[in-house]
Amino acid sequence: MQKGNAKISMAVIRRLPKYRRYLAELLDRGVHRISSRELSKIIGFTASQIRQDLNNFGGFGQQGYGYNVAALYEAIGKILGLDRKYNTIIVGAGNLGQAIANYTNFEKSGFIPKAMFDINPKLIGLKIRDIEIIDADKMEEYIKENNVDIGIICTNKEQAQAVADRLVKSNIKGIWNFAPTDLDVPEKVMLENVHLSESLYTLSFLLKHNRID
Amino acid sequence: MQKGNAKISMAVIRRLPKYRRYLAELLDRGVHRISSRELSKIIGFTASQIRQDLNNFGGFGQQGYGYNVAALYEAIGKILGLDRKYNTIIVGAGNLGQAIANYTNFEKSGFIPKAMFDINPKLIGLKIRDIEIIDADKMEEYIKENNVDIGIICTNKEQAQAVADRLVKSNIKGIWNFAPTDLDVPEKVMLENVHLSESLYTLSFLLKHNRID
Repeated sequence: MQKGNAKISMAVIRRLPKYRRYLAELLDRGVHRISSRELSKIIGFTASQIRQDLNNFGGFGQQGYGYNVAALYEAIGKILGLDRKYNTIIVGAGNLGQAIANYTNFEKSGFIPKAMFDINPKLIGLKIRDIEIIDADKMEEYIKENNVDIGIICTNKEQAQAVADRLVKSNIKGIWNFAPTDLDVPEKVMLENVHLSESLYTLSFLLKHNRID
Repeated sequence: MQKGNAKISMAVIRRLPKYRRYLAELLDRGVHRISSRELSKIIGFTASQIRQDLNNFGGFGQQGYGYNVAALYEAIGKILGLDRKYNTIIVGAGNLGQAIANYTNFEKSGFIPKAMFDINPKLIGLKIRDIEIIDADKMEEYIKENNVDIGIICTNKEQAQAVADRLVKSNIKGIWNFAPTDLDVPEKVMLENVHLSESLYTLSFLLKHNRID
């Protein structure tokens, strides 16, 4: 199944978490199978789009039967890499960093927050849940000793690139960036940006044009 | 120019803030015009995609000249509805709500945080910058008296729908939702969700498949 993934477009990949979220709700409600038409009503994509998306992974839909909800949920989780655990650190222990540290859903999905880092002496030594805020000077050492996979950047825009450079030098595998800037990292490091302003500007577009999609 | 907007796909709309961000950087660097090829190198979309996207708004690209950076930046801002101000409230004054209240960039773009609301008596009366945290019981009254356009939901998943219902009843125009759930609101209310887990799962996909896009 994974063999063909190289061909799957990023647009499809970005829709997979949404499928997975709706499938989890169906499982909670005791629904074991669902047609692309029924799924279309719930999720808002066309039935044809759904069939096309899910055909990428083969073998879950059968004409006249529909999709096996549990099998599809699990398969999408595997494709998304949610069948393993990731050690993460949060760099920048301000409000946003603390909000992410407090967000237990990520941990339930396998993203384990091991530590937070900051340069503010007032924060160093504090704990959010059981996650300690450590002096940022010790970050490289910590990454190497604790097999950290993902660095979550919650600093301001000005510090973000320097933090990313240090993460890269420490052989981090992935960066989840919340700083409102585009980071420059080598291709071997996977980078995902959360540009909140892009989402907000989409909302202002919708407000201005009063558009329903 | 706005006449044709009804036809523009959401995929194009969601790329506009990125164009705008890169154009702002070019302006900062004193670049007054740029070709789609040069823009492609910076922004990472193909030159053909860029021409196609920007053709939707007409009149900014000229063969052999390229794009007028300042004019295009301003036009995209207008299309995105960034030529006016929006009064916003933040519902839920925990870490995430406070992070957003502290984020002055949104204010610079015209999204004015007027107040925050919470049910926690320990938070009520506190201020984040000059934004007061008010008792959630007073939310409806406040929205009506202060001409609030956008409600930003920073509560947990369980409270989010009830908050959305109250915002809708108070004739809010738009909702920016950070709670990890899909909200049910009438079509006249514009809704934009920030599903952070979708972004995180995209990163885990990239890590698992070691994919560079």
